[in-house]
Amino acid sequence: MKAGPQRRYFDWAATAPGETDDAPDREGFPFGNPSSLHAEGRAARDLMEQARSRCAAALGVSPETIYFSSGGTESNALVIHSFLLRRGTGGFLYSAVEHPSVRENCRVLERLGKTVGLIPVETDGRVSGAGLERSLEKYRESRFAAIMAVNNETGAINDMEALSALIRGREGPPLHIHCDMVQAAGKIPVDISRWDIDSASVSAHKLGGPRGIGLLYLRRPLETLYRGGGQERGIRAGTENIAGALALASCLERRLEGLEASRRAATARLDRLMKALEAGGRYSPIPADRKDAADGRFSPYILQAAFDGVPGELMTRALDQAGFAVSTGSACSSARQERPVLEAMGLDPKRRLEGIRISQGWSTTGEDIELLIRAVGEVLNYL
Amino acid sequence: MKAGPQRRYFDWAATAPGETDDAPDREGFPFGNPSSLHAEGRAARDLMEQARSRCAAALGVSPETIYFSSGGTESNALVIHSFLLRRGTGGFLYSAVEHPSVRENCRVLERLGKTVGLIPVETDGRVSGAGLERSLEKYRESRFAAIMAVNNETGAINDMEALSALIRGREGPPLHIHCDMVQAAGKIPVDISRWDIDSASVSAHKLGGPRGIGLLYLRRPLETLYRGGGQERGIRAGTENIAGALALASCLERRLEGLEASRRAATARLDRLMKALEAGGRYSPIPADRKDAADGRFSPYILQAAFDGVPGELMTRALDQAGFAVSTGSACSSARQERPVLEAMGLDPKRRLEGIRISQGWSTTGEDIELLIRAVGEVLNYL
Repeated sequence: MKAGPQRRYFDWAATAPGETDDAPDREGFPFGNPSSLHAEGRAARDLMEQARSRCAAALGVSPETIYFSSGGTESNALVIHSFLLRRGTGGFLYSAVEHPSVRENCRVLERLGKTVGLIPVETDGRVSGAGLERSLEKYRESRFAAIMAVNNETGAINDMEALSALIRGREGPPLHIHCDMVQAAGKIPVDISRWDIDSASVSAHKLGGPRGIGLLYLRRPLETLYRGGGQERGIRAGTENIAGALALASCLERRLEGLEASRRAATARLDRLMKALEAGGRYSPIPADRKDAADGRFSPYILQAAFDGVPGELMTRALDQAGFAVSTGSACSSARQERPVLEAMGLDPKRRLEGIRISQGWSTTGEDIELLIRAVGEVLNYL
Repeated sequence: MKAGPQRRYFDWAATAPGETDDAPDREGFPFGNPSSLHAEGRAARDLMEQARSRCAAALGVSPETIYFSSGGTESNALVIHSFLLRRGTGGFLYSAVEHPSVRENCRVLERLGKTVGLIPVETDGRVSGAGLERSLEKYRESRFAAIMAVNNETGAINDMEALSALIRGREGPPLHIHCDMVQAAGKIPVDISRWDIDSASVSAHKLGGPRGIGLLYLRRPLETLYRGGGQERGIRAGTENIAGALALASCLERRLEGLEASRRAATARLDRLMKALEAGGRYSPIPADRKDAADGRFSPYILQAAFDGVPGELMTRALDQAGFAVSTGSACSSARQERPVLEAMGLDPKRRLEGIRISQGWSTTGEDIELLIRAVGEVLNYL
């Protein structure tokens, strides 16, 4: 239903027809506000629900558990801040390697009087059952635990199923398990039911979709802090981003469809890269015992690597000048001289500053890898 | 700087190149994460700063006071929730006709122990100096006042300059003045400096831009609740939506360029509409003393109208079937049988339920108006 010869639109205060070249609201795209009662609103609402159903199907959950947000950061914040509205100081646990959007929002809870605690990681950057048990023992009033599926700096994969089972098996009040799946969804198999988690976050732009759209899975609705016109059944206010939701559905479907083939190809490329870097010398993976691209503890899409005596920032800049984009740490903390993830893994300060992150995707080629290997060799020769 | 023959991209964990048809990250569009150090990141950052500068210039403020968010609702929430991190119960005043994204987030503050109070409106839906003074007198510890520039249901325009001056002139601790400009920016002249406000919100999709992007003006930085990777100088976390920011800049510029001509044309169309509805009978504007399209107390883009004995929802549905999109209340509250804005103006319950909102925009035509007039007449004849 669009504004055409048959329709006359007098609801501009709700939303305007898109018109800039950059706007996704193109000719023929329903521009109505999904919360409006008229035909334009209903058409928009239908599309939102289609996007929701498609995302739910891709993730193997029911549509009413999917809520659209502006991205992974907001999805994490929505869940964490919701606990401000609950009584008690609780206990808010998050793994020591969580993304800043989990860590920093948990610290906000702490500022506002809640008890917050860390779940340690082992030297491989993964949460172990023993470490989790120590945290649960220390924070007996725990109400919440955030454990990410795949770490954004090292690619370390947590065994969500085992960790959830451990949490569920303990005595005491029920605990909300939140899983940041931003680096996992569409890259490694995720199974929300088997993982037995209460909430999870996904971001579109990591999957080839646009910025400004993501989703939050919520097993049960919860009361969020962030209010307004009651959109997304009160969980996430703000006029619905229909084009974004549809784009997220599309890229999620595309990634899941090609997941196994992409993962095999990424593993083969990583194998070549790791072996060549090893042969070139001065290289160590982080953690040092990640020797093999087939190591199931890590995502093949992310390699944290260190070169003896070469600060990561120097390597990053040298590679950038040679035409290669790699990073130190995560984009979300690259402006700071901190490596909290590597610190939590027990790496010494010098090694931490040597780490660089090489991350690949579905369209990375074998040629890209060969050129990167050569470029790293040249930088090392020069230094 | 794009991923082409010269560049090899190994920072997929930060962000992926866009690939869905719906994604704004098209070929040649810098897809880097603006927080990344490499060339792709710098190119993205440059574009973000261009968008920021263009929005700032359009609003007559300096670029460092502009922060991009996901829209008007989030911009309002960012400011309001920030007060949770400040000591004291303060006093949080908001006008009785604020949008739900202001009202409901202020109520969250109340839930969390802050003192919240209403600024009444007169029967014309506007905040008066006398009403504001009573509120300030009643809530002497006030730290915050939210007064919207243009009401989204009635088009009532507040005299921000006079109201700010009244607030600034009182004794006591300084007060943060927040102005929801979502229905004002690009439609009526806004002057942030003259209005002497501390923060303001703007939404792109009301201006012809895409969903999921808006901005927050902040005279001075403040500590927000919403954390993550420190983007937008710590005010609003989450990977930057570059395409959205540029689209917002474009539509803001376009609206401001044509503002006076559009406003004159909208006033002429509203004049024709109001006179014809008046002649047709059973019609009253809301408020009843809004007789004239040139009445400077109201935006010419929004008319709240009532038809004697015709419930607004019935009129809305009848017009919808005839091909006309109008609304009852705001989209953000149309699902509920409440009209808090009309209630705050002192309208009796029957009249409140008769109200419909007719809102127009820059591409509404005289023909649209003539057809609407005829359709309303036919609905009234039929009922």
